[in-house]
Amino acid sequence: MPDISSTAPSPAAIDPQRLQAMMEAVSAFGGGADGSMTRLSLSEEDRKARDWLGAWFKDNGFTQKVDAIGNQFGLLDLAGHNAPTVMVGSHIDSQPNGGRFDGALGVVAACEAVRAVAEGLKREGASSACNFAIVNWTNEEGARFQPSLLGSSVFTGAAALDWALERRDGAGVSVGEALRSIGYAGDDKVPVPAALIELHIEGAPSLENSKKRIGAFSRFWGATKYRLAFIGRQAHTGPTPMAERQDALLAAGFVITGLKRLAGDYGLDLHTSVGRLEVFPNSPNTVPGEAVLFIELRSGSPEILREAEEKLKAMIAEAADFAKVGSEVRSVDYRAAGAMDAGLVRLAGEVSARRGEDMPLLDTIGGHDAVALAAVCPAVVLAVPSVGGVIHHPTEFTKPEDQAFGVQIVADMLHELATGGAAVIKADKTP
Amino acid sequence: MPDISSTAPSPAAIDPQRLQAMMEAVSAFGGGADGSMTRLSLSEEDRKARDWLGAWFKDNGFTQKVDAIGNQFGLLDLAGHNAPTVMVGSHIDSQPNGGRFDGALGVVAACEAVRAVAEGLKREGASSACNFAIVNWTNEEGARFQPSLLGSSVFTGAAALDWALERRDGAGVSVGEALRSIGYAGDDKVPVPAALIELHIEGAPSLENSKKRIGAFSRFWGATKYRLAFIGRQAHTGPTPMAERQDALLAAGFVITGLKRLAGDYGLDLHTSVGRLEVFPNSPNTVPGEAVLFIELRSGSPEILREAEEKLKAMIAEAADFAKVGSEVRSVDYRAAGAMDAGLVRLAGEVSARRGEDMPLLDTIGGHDAVALAAVCPAVVLAVPSVGGVIHHPTEFTKPEDQAFGVQIVADMLHELATGGAAVIKADKTP
Repeated sequence: MPDISSTAPSPAAIDPQRLQAMMEAVSAFGGGADGSMTRLSLSEEDRKARDWLGAWFKDNGFTQKVDAIGNQFGLLDLAGHNAPTVMVGSHIDSQPNGGRFDGALGVVAACEAVRAVAEGLKREGASSACNFAIVNWTNEEGARFQPSLLGSSVFTGAAALDWALERRDGAGVSVGEALRSIGYAGDDKVPVPAALIELHIEGAPSLENSKKRIGAFSRFWGATKYRLAFIGRQAHTGPTPMAERQDALLAAGFVITGLKRLAGDYGLDLHTSVGRLEVFPNSPNTVPGEAVLFIELRSGSPEILREAEEKLKAMIAEAADFAKVGSEVRSVDYRAAGAMDAGLVRLAGEVSARRGEDMPLLDTIGGHDAVALAAVCPAVVLAVPSVGGVIHHPTEFTKPEDQAFGVQIVADMLHELATGGAAVIKADKTP
Repeated sequence: MPDISSTAPSPAAIDPQRLQAMMEAVSAFGGGADGSMTRLSLSEEDRKARDWLGAWFKDNGFTQKVDAIGNQFGLLDLAGHNAPTVMVGSHIDSQPNGGRFDGALGVVAACEAVRAVAEGLKREGASSACNFAIVNWTNEEGARFQPSLLGSSVFTGAAALDWALERRDGAGVSVGEALRSIGYAGDDKVPVPAALIELHIEGAPSLENSKKRIGAFSRFWGATKYRLAFIGRQAHTGPTPMAERQDALLAAGFVITGLKRLAGDYGLDLHTSVGRLEVFPNSPNTVPGEAVLFIELRSGSPEILREAEEKLKAMIAEAADFAKVGSEVRSVDYRAAGAMDAGLVRLAGEVSARRGEDMPLLDTIGGHDAVALAAVCPAVVLAVPSVGGVIHHPTEFTKPEDQAFGVQIVADMLHELATGGAAVIKADKTP
């Protein structure tokens, strides 16, 4: 594979060592000795990582802005107040016992890429047609607070701020309370950018299997997420006759296995899961009185998603009947399938080709903040290879040279946008 | 129904008002406004209830002893050092969000019954052929620490003390640590009694349905309890292909539904349950890497229990195969089916008949400390009606007049043992 520095002229050469140093620094906040990362949204670890990022903004001439949902921005004014802003970033929160690269790489990449472009322009004495903004979105993961993509969805207006601030974690703490307790309940207003670029690990094995260094997510899958409660009745697991039990966990088991069969009906086109299950009172010798399932249906096809949801509803009714329990859909979250901005995808392919790599087009099945942003501005996610396709696991890993290549492609895109000008963006703005 | 005081002469008349006052007093420790009780073993609520019981012992002339597993005894010496001791009691710990009568009634009943007998003997100037001991066994419920019947099993030697002290709750706190933290890590030695009598709520609807005020558990079901882990692999619920997932919760769902079908194979003779399920990391968008099931099989037939366990093993293998995960049996706890002491059952029936009530013989399916004691001394559990058969639920209830009648029967038995003498016990000692 080509070395970054040996190919095309590089007016915005990134520094791989500096990038690695930043990845190491940010991994200290919530990282375990086994490679794991637990940096739940708005936790103390998240606060420390945010403070670290804010210090970096300050040291590097960026102006920090924090909005009411805690999205953290670093603005770099290179082109004056009336010029368009190109935004780059991802999220710094993680899954519990997750990996170090999901999210954090995209924020660190933004820092290094924007810095490299700004340094390059200065070196050349060139002006910029746009300003830059780095972003760290709040609660992308949806691990501590549901739904995921919370900060970016409030930013685009897809989610109401008041509603978002009232989302609560398993301990009953609201987003608003958590923001205040870590000091990130801001009041800055940041406008929708002219374009949004996100770098992320692929989280699947397709780039690795096809020996590619980079890809572009050109389409995103839709998702339908149910928080579903089965309500039974507590009783002793000993004397209570089997026929009289109203076992909420039994209904949950019925749906868990049923969802696996449902996915099988659609081959590769439907993903289903129950990732979280809350059982109450969860005592070995008490028939469970309540079970809350966090169900996901994901597909690239809106028709399949609709059909799968109808089948899920029938399955819930059947499970409730089987276990003699009630059911209650506590929340439903719909994310529509769609496409990323064609112009940004094309630009990414062009700068990648100049460095001797073609860029396959991929579907993203997991959500990304850029998917939320795609509703209001041109947006794209570039993907770098995940070793073994691993994500949400302590062994999640992207090789340093692949990280660096991805960041270089982002920097090259930013340089094009700064020098090629806003036309690159505006001409391709999605309808 | 006959009023207690209007029938046979009562040299050991209990005081129903005093009994209710004690039930109210003990319900303050962990009781909720909705009738619920959460007094987990060795919790702060348990400590307060123990301290209250200890104060009662002191005020009423009992000598408190606490053994190394925290079993709390109150000894009343009426017959001198060489006389046999008749023990009465139950447990003061509860399920989470359970009821107020399961366990606590048996301890309060012991206090009131022994006090009534001692007062009666004193009034008559009669001597006693035996001493009395009241007992509050540690961790009967098995809710915070597994297995259940922990204190009584250590007392009989069925469980090793060191092993028991090392059992840990969901937060990693050991029994030994919890005992020390509430001040109940004792070092008294209390010998196996000549007989053990326990009063308990039925926890099933059979007495209520047959309009009986009291029953005797003459047989106890056996139980086989598995703590079973499925070990999968964490991954993102989005991009990870369905075919590559190793979903520990999926395997759990397979076993949960399979156990329900297994019970169906044996009609009324097998009870199965999964009351507790621990999922890790339990995040909505991460494929579960581990699921730990607390499985119970219960039957009055040792053959059915053995056969059901073999079927469970096959089911575990099938589930692991289905979900592409590993499995690990973390612990197995066997409790054999058996019979209570025939002499004590007969004595209970006789004193009950004198008060105009016949006493049906029942099976106990749930475990009781008297079941553990039955391995080393004559033991019996008397049951009073549960309204609606409810147990392990905030609405668990036994009418005050039924409580009083049960306590009176216990007092009558104790009076017989004290005046009829040790022959009543020894003649019927189980082989």
